[in-house]
Amino acid sequence: MADPRFYDNAGPLLLAQVAELTGAKAAAGADAQIADVAALDSAGPGQISYCEGPKFKGALERTQASVVLVPAALASSVPPTAIAMVCDRPALAFAKVSTALYPNAFWLWPADKPPLHAIAPSARVGEGTVIAPGVFIGEGVEIGDDCIIGPGVAIARGVQIGHKAWLGAHVRISHALIGDRCIVHGGTSIGQDGFGYVSGPRGHFKIPQLGRVIVQDDVEIGANCAIDRGALADTVIGEGSKIDNLVQIGHNNRIGRRNVLAAQSGFAGSSETGEFVVLGGQVGVADHVRVGAGAMIAAKSGVTRSLEGGKVHGGFPAKPIEQWRREVATLSRLAKGKRNRDERDGS
Amino acid sequence: MADPRFYDNAGPLLLAQVAELTGAKAAAGADAQIADVAALDSAGPGQISYCEGPKFKGALERTQASVVLVPAALASSVPPTAIAMVCDRPALAFAKVSTALYPNAFWLWPADKPPLHAIAPSARVGEGTVIAPGVFIGEGVEIGDDCIIGPGVAIARGVQIGHKAWLGAHVRISHALIGDRCIVHGGTSIGQDGFGYVSGPRGHFKIPQLGRVIVQDDVEIGANCAIDRGALADTVIGEGSKIDNLVQIGHNNRIGRRNVLAAQSGFAGSSETGEFVVLGGQVGVADHVRVGAGAMIAAKSGVTRSLEGGKVHGGFPAKPIEQWRREVATLSRLAKGKRNRDERDGS
Amino acid sequence: MADPRFYDNAGPLLLAQVAELTGAKAAAGADAQIADVAALDSAGPGQISYCEGPKFKGALERTQASVVLVPAALASSVPPTAIAMVCDRPALAFAKVSTALYPNAFWLWPADKPPLHAIAPSARVGEGTVIAPGVFIGEGVEIGDDCIIGPGVAIARGVQIGHKAWLGAHVRISHALIGDRCIVHGGTSIGQDGFGYVSGPRGHFKIPQLGRVIVQDDVEIGANCAIDRGALADTVIGEGSKIDNLVQIGHNNRIGRRNVLAAQSGFAGSSETGEFVVLGGQVGVADHVRVGAGAMIAAKSGVTRSLEGGKVHGGFPAKPIEQWRREVATLSRLAKGKRNRDERDGS
Repeated sequence: MADPRFYDNAGPLLLAQVAELTGAKAAAGADAQIADVAALDSAGPGQISYCEGPKFKGALERTQASVVLVPAALASSVPPTAIAMVCDRPALAFAKVSTALYPNAFWLWPADKPPLHAIAPSARVGEGTVIAPGVFIGEGVEIGDDCIIGPGVAIARGVQIGHKAWLGAHVRISHALIGDRCIVHGGTSIGQDGFGYVSGPRGHFKIPQLGRVIVQDDVEIGANCAIDRGALADTVIGEGSKIDNLVQIGHNNRIGRRNVLAAQSGFAGSSETGEFVVLGGQVGVADHVRVGAGAMIAAKSGVTRSLEGGKVHGGFPAKPIEQWRREVATLSRLAKGKRNRDERDGS
Repeated sequence: MADPRFYDNAGPLLLAQVAELTGAKAAAGADAQIADVAALDSAGPGQISYCEGPKFKGALERTQASVVLVPAALASSVPPTAIAMVCDRPALAFAKVSTALYPNAFWLWPADKPPLHAIAPSARVGEGTVIAPGVFIGEGVEIGDDCIIGPGVAIARGVQIGHKAWLGAHVRISHALIGDRCIVHGGTSIGQDGFGYVSGPRGHFKIPQLGRVIVQDDVEIGANCAIDRGALADTVIGEGSKIDNLVQIGHNNRIGRRNVLAAQSGFAGSSETGEFVVLGGQVGVADHVRVGAGAMIAAKSGVTRSLEGGKVHGGFPAKPIEQWRREVATLSRLAKGKRNRDERDGS
Repeated sequence: MADPRFYDNAGPLLLAQVAELTGAKAAAGADAQIADVAALDSAGPGQISYCEGPKFKGALERTQASVVLVPAALASSVPPTAIAMVCDRPALAFAKVSTALYPNAFWLWPADKPPLHAIAPSARVGEGTVIAPGVFIGEGVEIGDDCIIGPGVAIARGVQIGHKAWLGAHVRISHALIGDRCIVHGGTSIGQDGFGYVSGPRGHFKIPQLGRVIVQDDVEIGANCAIDRGALADTVIGEGSKIDNLVQIGHNNRIGRRNVLAAQSGFAGSSETGEFVVLGGQVGVADHVRVGAGAMIAAKSGVTRSLEGGKVHGGFPAKPIEQWRREVATLSRLAKGKRNRDERDGS
């Protein structure tokens, strides 16, 4: 369930309402209701989920959701504990239901509490914490002891920050829990919407992003980074990891403990790294891959599939570094050969 | 003509003044005057333009400018309706005239109205719009109804924002018109100067950037992006396009409708995309290219020339994806062959 | 010595204290004391330095430091003017001593002066300078005449800014000296900590960054850039250089005069460019390389070693552009040959 510190649930919805919103047809239970949205594998009673295609059939068969939006071909795989709602585009239907349940999912304050104060009366700030001028602190925020909050920092509703944290000027944090002794340099944005849409011929329908960002203890994050919150799950930055400037962490990534991510590197989304992974500058990591513990990725590499831990990888697509070096050397040699032939032939 | 909502014109200038500023010599009309600067193909009466070389001879012959700065070799191609001013470096001369006409082109407020108020009295804000603390709204700004303006947002003189827009914390907007239902996440900069200089042995002379940014309806822009305004024309983000975090859009780019631009991608300048173009993460697009409707560009690609629509492209330089995949496979195979030979030869 | 405008020195430390902090053993002089930290080649009397390995033996033999942290194998190379302190991990020991001497090295204000005022009483602002609302100016800051300071700008303790500078909204500057007529666009962060750690099996120990950023006259820096201050030396941006949006300049880089760095390019650290170097978009430059005067680097290149000036380089690893073009053409030709063979063979 979406964390109520960050999200106001406008539900419940009757299945009749879901049907009206989405065009999906329920086999039964039009007066049943759903209170929340969730992924197939984390949904529980009273929650609605969706299954986009046969790839997720296993999760569908095991789901504990009360209602599942499915294409007709998968209706028979919905477990008996759930009501199947059949529709052509389950992901779009699910996004519409999510929007109805969380119409203000990307707001920085509760819909009924416009930010009248720079520091909300309900915010709690620990002892010894110094707050510079121009700071915005929203409803229900909790900040630990001995923190330093730089000029113009904006901390949205419900955010929790541990002890001895240091936030540079104009840091923005929403939908996030930040550990002890974290350092975030100026201009970094933590917790904004992930980049998720259901695309069709008429355009791109925004999928409400209902997760959080969890930044564990002793993390340092550079200047002007962007760390998106999760869609239904959380984006996680593991304990003791160090992130350089201008780094992009998309939604649902789980960065392991004690990683080192150099400047301008980026993770698309839903990927995972083990402990002590090191990324060089301008590395890109595709979605849904896993980088094993202790792996090192050379600068400017593109990680397109999962990589073994404990090794050095490089190139695009990223591969064992010796292989990439051999490819670089091979191409150089072949091109020189061509040049020599061209010169010999007088061309 | 530069939009007077954003730019104060300090003209007109006598041609004698232009000659003194630039060293250009007019064949006639030293007491004529020019009121504005414009590109050859959009200039009209009372305006000065320039032609850098024979590549633009066609546009020169058709121009409706009243005055044109040209190298001697092109003076005879200036149409009879225009006065030719001959000089060695027309682009530099034009930049100097632009600077004289718009000495404060990159200011965030009118030169005669220093920003005494956080919200200028002349700004108009629609009904139902909620403005967080610490927001700066400049002279003549208009914001529609039911918008959400996050903490510390800075909106410079003359900016127009439609209805139901949502701006995250510390968004910066200048020299721009923003449509309805646009979402801009925290820390994004819209409307700053494009990256334009006339370079010579003594350094780089700044070319005043006199265009705007047009963000059409239903656009979403991620965190910490940078979208420069146009030089003489506009930078445009088409209706319904979605832009991820840390994306760079240089001056004069025209992003089509319903594009999807993944994180850390960038457009150099003066390029154009058709409808429904999709860019993967960390893609770079060179200047003055066209990407056709429905094209998809794989992550990390470098687009160096125009690409056909409706296809998937990849690699650097970007090419049809199957070709790029073949190249990757070919190099891998050749490098392995080399390795096998080396091992066989005991080297 | 760390610039006292930016750093409060908590020393001196007795060698006995250094020993306790680091586990290093001094051959003599436990009641001697050190007042500051410095690199081997810049250290002077009363300062402590370190030598990590035999690579730096020459600098060790010439150092004028009073105390040097060294591994046992190098103790005999410490000059007679210095006391050797032997330890297993000199870099880690040095980082611990630095932390003890500068416990608040990354603060934005002096530890004993929390920022009560948006504009510190001790700040000096020149005539004709216009300051927008929401600006933070720290203790001891000096800003010249006729500057424009945009909304929400944050200038930390001790920063010096010349005349006629222009700072866009939410620019952040700390630990920096900025020249005359500099332009910095919105959201750029100058002067935050470089990305430096001593890594070990238990994690990454933060190395205090005690240098500065020097931005010389007539520099322009785009939106949402990040320019880190030096570790022990300074990061320098040379006179008249122009930097586009979203550019990363890591610690200790020395960018030459009149460089042009296109958007999303990045320098890892401790590299140097000559005059009139041009980088295309998304170029990456590794650490400790030198790019010669007048070199041009094509977009998306990766500079992994020093490059000759006056030439055009491209590719990754960057090489003479003709060579890179030949490689691209060679690979394309080979892959096509393979395709033709495959088609002929019916595969």
